[in-house]
Amino acid sequence: MTLVKIGGNVINNKKALSSFLHDFSELKGLKILVHGGGKKASELSNKLGLESTMIGGRRVTDQATLEIVTMVYAGLLNKNIVAELQSLACNAIGLSGADGNLIKSHKRIVQEIDYGFAGDIDAVNTETLAIFLEKKLTPVLCAITHDNKGQLLNTNADTIASEVAKALSELYQVELIYCFEKNGVLLDVNDENSVIEDIDHRQYEKLKQEGAIADGMLPKLENCFSSLQHGVMKVRIGKPELIADKGIKHSILSL
Amino acid sequence: MTLVKIGGNVINNKKALSSFLHDFSELKGLKILVHGGGKKASELSNKLGLESTMIGGRRVTDQATLEIVTMVYAGLLNKNIVAELQSLACNAIGLSGADGNLIKSHKRIVQEIDYGFAGDIDAVNTETLAIFLEKKLTPVLCAITHDNKGQLLNTNADTIASEVAKALSELYQVELIYCFEKNGVLLDVNDENSVIEDIDHRQYEKLKQEGAIADGMLPKLENCFSSLQHGVMKVRIGKPELIADKGIKHSILSL
Repeated sequence: MTLVKIGGNVINNKKALSSFLHDFSELKGLKILVHGGGKKASELSNKLGLESTMIGGRRVTDQATLEIVTMVYAGLLNKNIVAELQSLACNAIGLSGADGNLIKSHKRIVQEIDYGFAGDIDAVNTETLAIFLEKKLTPVLCAITHDNKGQLLNTNADTIASEVAKALSELYQVELIYCFEKNGVLLDVNDENSVIEDIDHRQYEKLKQEGAIADGMLPKLENCFSSLQHGVMKVRIGKPELIADKGIKHSILSL
Repeated sequence: MTLVKIGGNVINNKKALSSFLHDFSELKGLKILVHGGGKKASELSNKLGLESTMIGGRRVTDQATLEIVTMVYAGLLNKNIVAELQSLACNAIGLSGADGNLIKSHKRIVQEIDYGFAGDIDAVNTETLAIFLEKKLTPVLCAITHDNKGQLLNTNADTIASEVAKALSELYQVELIYCFEKNGVLLDVNDENSVIEDIDHRQYEKLKQEGAIADGMLPKLENCFSSLQHGVMKVRIGKPELIADKGIKHSILSL
């Protein structure tokens, strides 16, 4: 099974998204797509005169923001991605974590920062995901989950990808691919050619201690290594093109 | 199987919606919920400075409006309904017609009026709906479909309810219940006590010719009788409370 996560940089660009979805539709075997949010939620907030507050790269989700991300992630983005995949003969089904109780989370406990309606994942419903996969449906998961008490929660898409990959590795051999705007883990963040093509956990710890890994990459890589430690077979990270182009440089992570 | 359609009047009122969802969650057997839009789409349009154009009770859907209804119907309303049903131990799954290619439609052909991105239904995918139903999932369908060429389309929720009920009557004994703001088909639109409790097709035609049925009711009743003519076992129409309260007055339609 292949689980691919795409972020805002692909979603913000209609042509890049179409190209990616074409490649994704041609992937053989069972697959899942997890998508992030993109600029559209902030754009809509701005148009409505609301302010987006980000702390440490994470959105603070008040009630009005929760409504906006639910509309944009679960509605606009998810359904347009599904419709485009359907046109490419990929039998996509767009889902939030509330649908079929796929991803149960809890509202993040307030410590120093109150992230509002942000969800931290408790459980992934592999049984229901497996029903879809076995019926040749391709789940397209947006970054909205629920607490099973009626509350929707805004949830980090990288973490959703990692937790779903881990949970499904009990049933399948799972490969997890994180697509983002860079060629992979870079030794020099300004040099796209400085990709570390193979990086194991020991090297990662060393680079982290040396401060060689950019801040934004740390949580992403923590998710990657956590996935490998919990049964995921393979984790790759790089530009969206890597899912089709065997030649393009990217990083392969291992324990 | 019971298919219930709720409209804007229930959705606009948080308390009425909660009460309805509670009753719906307690319905025995296989079930599907189809929901309309409510005022939220128009409210969001207004806030964004767009104008909603309605012709004959149907929204004209330009590109900006399509984005709004996709956000509101498939995102905000659908996911909040699903989360609330999940909290009531009803294993709901929120879906548009694009998901799993459930409802294929085509952009309405322009005759006198150009309705824009409005969908007329071509096909309902009973095979995939049956997979969900047999796995004890309860589909919650919003009023967005697709043309299988990548285009989402705004589609009348009454018609979705009727077409899905008809299609599933090949596999199940289907009861269709239309919930709206009145007690049923009224002889006098201003008198809630003038409910015609049993109405057959001959009576309907007679009342229609006499002009005794209000304009807004005509398409709804056409959908009802069309459903009965195409295999649906039973059609009832009335206030949302009718699904739980056996005593409340409503109309039962027959051929």
